Amino acid sequence: MAITGVMRIGVVALRVLDLETCLRHYRDVLGLRLVARDATRAYLKGWDEHDHHSLVLRQADQAGNDYCAFKVRRPDDLDRFRGRLEALGVAVQDLPDQPYCGPAIGFTTPSGHAIQLYAEMAQVGNGLSTHCPEFEPDDIAGAAVTRMEHCLLYGPNVAETEQLFMEALDFSVSERLNLPDGSLKATFLACSTKMHDVAFIAHPQPGMFHHVSFWIDSDAALMRAANLFGRHQVTIDEGPTQHGIGRARTIYFWDPSGNRNEVFGGSYLHYPDKPVLTWGAEELGKALSYPQRRVNQSFLTVVT
Amino acid sequence: MAITGVMRIGVVALRVLDLETCLRHYRDVLGLRLVARDATRAYLKGWDEHDHHSLVLRQADQAGNDYCAFKVRRPDDLDRFRGRLEALGVAVQDLPDQPYCGPAIGFTTPSGHAIQLYAEMAQVGNGLSTHCPEFEPDDIAGAAVTRMEHCLLYGPNVAETEQLFMEALDFSVSERLNLPDGSLKATFLACSTKMHDVAFIAHPQPGMFHHVSFWIDSDAALMRAANLFGRHQVTIDEGPTQHGIGRARTIYFWDPSGNRNEVFGGSYLHYPDKPVLTWGAEELGKALSYPQRRVNQSFLTVVT
Amino acid sequence: MAITGVMRIGVVALRVLDLETCLRHYRDVLGLRLVARDATRAYLKGWDEHDHHSLVLRQADQAGNDYCAFKVRRPDDLDRFRGRLEALGVAVQDLPDQPYCGPAIGFTTPSGHAIQLYAEMAQVGNGLSTHCPEFEPDDIAGAAVTRMEHCLLYGPNVAETEQLFMEALDFSVSERLNLPDGSLKATFLACSTKMHDVAFIAHPQPGMFHHVSFWIDSDAALMRAANLFGRHQVTIDEGPTQHGIGRARTIYFWDPSGNRNEVFGGSYLHYPDKPVLTWGAEELGKALSYPQRRVNQSFLTVVT
Amino acid sequence: MAITGVMRIGVVALRVLDLETCLRHYRDVLGLRLVARDATRAYLKGWDEHDHHSLVLRQADQAGNDYCAFKVRRPDDLDRFRGRLEALGVAVQDLPDQPYCGPAIGFTTPSGHAIQLYAEMAQVGNGLSTHCPEFEPDDIAGAAVTRMEHCLLYGPNVAETEQLFMEALDFSVSERLNLPDGSLKATFLACSTKMHDVAFIAHPQPGMFHHVSFWIDSDAALMRAANLFGRHQVTIDEGPTQHGIGRARTIYFWDPSGNRNEVFGGSYLHYPDKPVLTWGAEELGKALSYPQRRVNQSFLTVVT
Repeated sequence: MAITGVMRIGVVALRVLDLETCLRHYRDVLGLRLVARDATRAYLKGWDEHDHHSLVLRQADQAGNDYCAFKVRRPDDLDRFRGRLEALGVAVQDLPDQPYCGPAIGFTTPSGHAIQLYAEMAQVGNGLSTHCPEFEPDDIAGAAVTRMEHCLLYGPNVAETEQLFMEALDFSVSERLNLPDGSLKATFLACSTKMHDVAFIAHPQPGMFHHVSFWIDSDAALMRAANLFGRHQVTIDEGPTQHGIGRARTIYFWDPSGNRNEVFGGSYLHYPDKPVLTWGAEELGKALSYPQRRVNQSFLTVVT
Repeated sequence: MAITGVMRIGVVALRVLDLETCLRHYRDVLGLRLVARDATRAYLKGWDEHDHHSLVLRQADQAGNDYCAFKVRRPDDLDRFRGRLEALGVAVQDLPDQPYCGPAIGFTTPSGHAIQLYAEMAQVGNGLSTHCPEFEPDDIAGAAVTRMEHCLLYGPNVAETEQLFMEALDFSVSERLNLPDGSLKATFLACSTKMHDVAFIAHPQPGMFHHVSFWIDSDAALMRAANLFGRHQVTIDEGPTQHGIGRARTIYFWDPSGNRNEVFGGSYLHYPDKPVLTWGAEELGKALSYPQRRVNQSFLTVVT
Repeated sequence: MAITGVMRIGVVALRVLDLETCLRHYRDVLGLRLVARDATRAYLKGWDEHDHHSLVLRQADQAGNDYCAFKVRRPDDLDRFRGRLEALGVAVQDLPDQPYCGPAIGFTTPSGHAIQLYAEMAQVGNGLSTHCPEFEPDDIAGAAVTRMEHCLLYGPNVAETEQLFMEALDFSVSERLNLPDGSLKATFLACSTKMHDVAFIAHPQPGMFHHVSFWIDSDAALMRAANLFGRHQVTIDEGPTQHGIGRARTIYFWDPSGNRNEVFGGSYLHYPDKPVLTWGAEELGKALSYPQRRVNQSFLTVVT
Repeated sequence: MAITGVMRIGVVALRVLDLETCLRHYRDVLGLRLVARDATRAYLKGWDEHDHHSLVLRQADQAGNDYCAFKVRRPDDLDRFRGRLEALGVAVQDLPDQPYCGPAIGFTTPSGHAIQLYAEMAQVGNGLSTHCPEFEPDDIAGAAVTRMEHCLLYGPNVAETEQLFMEALDFSVSERLNLPDGSLKATFLACSTKMHDVAFIAHPQPGMFHHVSFWIDSDAALMRAANLFGRHQVTIDEGPTQHGIGRARTIYFWDPSGNRNEVFGGSYLHYPDKPVLTWGAEELGKALSYPQRRVNQSFLTVVT
């Protein structure tokens, strides 16, 4: 296939302080489907995703990110990527038993984040027939997000982390933000045509989680999501507005455990032959909130 | 890169009866950029495309399609695909001298269409800086289509043509429509995450052109395009409406030489692990015009 | 009040062949609220209307329009309008007992349509608190039309009917379409800032009903309505498209008894000092379907 | 006519510190038409307004509001309203010579604002023919606001001012916000179906100007306006967001002289028989910014 190796970010696993409360947020307000749950975990997906789940919530004492998992095209890609990672000196773990999912491999990025790769997951479909499907399901709730979109992670060693995703996993960079000293502040890494599947921003503390993003497909859906957040007392961090980076409409907000979420839409189709777009630190406001050209301090400081 | 081999449909080349009249249509009404022209050809692009052109108009005595060209990731992909095509018994031509473009190879599909592959094209950018870009250019005209999206081609041997794109060029199928006798009526072929870069529909006459599609990014843009078509006396074939196939908003209309165009938006993100969606002949109306469930006879019969 | 006399079209009463089937259409597909019903009648309203009902469906042997009722500002307006109507030679009936509604008066237009005026109706609210209301209710179904908008009626003596609405009821004309012989083909009559509350089109048969229209508030809502019509097998007559007359987005479709409906949005704010816009018969296509400039024959001929 | 007396807010007259700079803002960024100008004043209108102007900018040493002028239906309304105002003890001035406008009368509200009433203004049209018009003009610039919408004024004696507009000028109240002590903090006053043509908020200093609002007709237009404000360095005060009061989409921003503007859309159709909606001081955040439930301090304090 022309999409080979890593296809997409497939799963983000979050720790939450109260599973029931967070289920109401992710299922009833955002409109994700609850696919499965056990004593400590809930598995959810956007209605238009075909795989079993894209979001795992785990009851824990502290909010944050357990791991991000990327789906590869073929089972033998796992061996190939293991080889390339180990050749670069990265320790790779076997993760044979994943619920609803084939075997995975795991490693830790220089930024301190747990990453998994997997090739197979149970398919449950998008609620529409595969033969002569209707346009959309009848029972989409809340903000009706269609799919998990990307994650943004905070940690040190952003340049080394970018290099690892490019060299070991064939990601391409769509946009970058550099500090005045020339160091890399932020990198947006794409494996297919989304402008990023994952991004990293420089931060002293390793392994921190900034946000998981869900796709909304229009300005009308963006404003409707905003209204639902008002109605359901969801705390908004920033937006509705538009990012200069990624040319995307956005609202940042928090789940009840303090993990930041985003609804995200618009943007452009990324191909690896597109020029990399660059930003300077002095343009951070324009990059984050294009209309307001305003740096929201919580964006830079509040992570889980 | 995770996008390897064929990245996208990069160029569609059309024959038009009057270049000046058609320029007014494609540049002033659709809002494509005129990048270059000579005595017999005009080269245009959507504003948000970075490569030199995606549409070539050639003055000719008869409307129709000269060729569709696909951009591959690396120059050595051309040799690789030549080998795979020849191994399948397909004759491959060298096309060393393409204006504004690196060397290409060409072949003819079982459906009778001229296809080219190329790896390099001059880049002219999308009108925005690559450093700290604005959100959009100031001077977008007309319907403001952002990029050339896909082509639909009519001809015989659709099953063989599908097989060739899959086996030689690594395309995946997103949706298919089958006739009551089990034969393949239509196939939608994707090389990246668009639900198709090219589609084929069974037709007795080989090498026929159905439409070239341009991306519009919202319902508001769809309705605005419709108004511009009214204002500029563009003849609409069907729409504004929504396709069941591809879950896309659409308007079909004709350029002044009788080549069908489409503005197209919405749809879904296609990955090669998504189930293939299938349609029967009795569901053609729902597939083409989901709200109306109506088969527009001209859709099936009028080609150039 | 600065809005005096006739405020708006308040109720349209339709005959339907099967009340249950039509309830599914108006309540579940269009998203009207069912407020009350008895053995032969159902009373419905748009979610954002405060009065008890705006649509009455009556089980009958033949589809069509029982009457259109307009709400006036004050009870003594009824006497005032009775006086003006009678001074113009129009017979006026007393209609003292209307369900959920204060006393009304009735008369027949030169076009053969039954018109009522009333000043009072029970208020049931729009589902939101009058103190510190939320943005919208949680339980809006289907196409989520917000309110009944206007009616279009077919019959003879359009000029006389227009004159009656202007002289007796203080309506103003927003737009008119004239035939080549100078006679009035269509008139759009406004009592407040909507470009029409009622319109009349010349037709040999008196008292015929063309459509009742319901408001939708965006292009996204228009396209979503179209999809719901596809999903629920609602037969579309025309659209989604835009009217040249009224500058409005529109879909025409039929209820299960053959009464034509419309979803309608956009348009402009009408004030009585705006110039009257005029159209000629040769511009009928542009007036009805601006993008397509196409006269849909059923629009001119199919009435109930 | 059913719209009688005061039809609408017709003109807002602002003082600006630099006429040229402000022209670029109002004409090129907001997209108002410049209709006339002399040494000290510029006259502008929204593209879809028919009267000569709706915004007057006057070069001055201090920003702020010269007056708001309301258009009445008939010339003899001026005498009628003069009589009612004087009967309530309000001094009324003759303003016989208004540029591009018939004679006016003027008075000062208890809140300290200069109000004018006029019945006639030169008509210049909306750029479209009155016979068989196109859907929209070809040359709309910038944010393409269609018309001046309303003003919000700050001053003392809000209850007395509301009473004056209701008793002397037949306005109705759509929504009100009360302070814990029962006093009236804010009132929204409508003369036709807009939820307000003018609003007043309690403030110790008389005659202060909060904002003038311009209509935008969709979520897409709202987000596009936001982008234009980013591109043209317009300082945003709040938004894009949605008001709980008025159920309206909004962006607040400043002109180059510090006068606050708003783009405003959505909302509902107000009739005088609708229940008055009420808000408490503790719900101010929800009233102003429904999704964020946040009181922007500058909203309450910065006026000109």
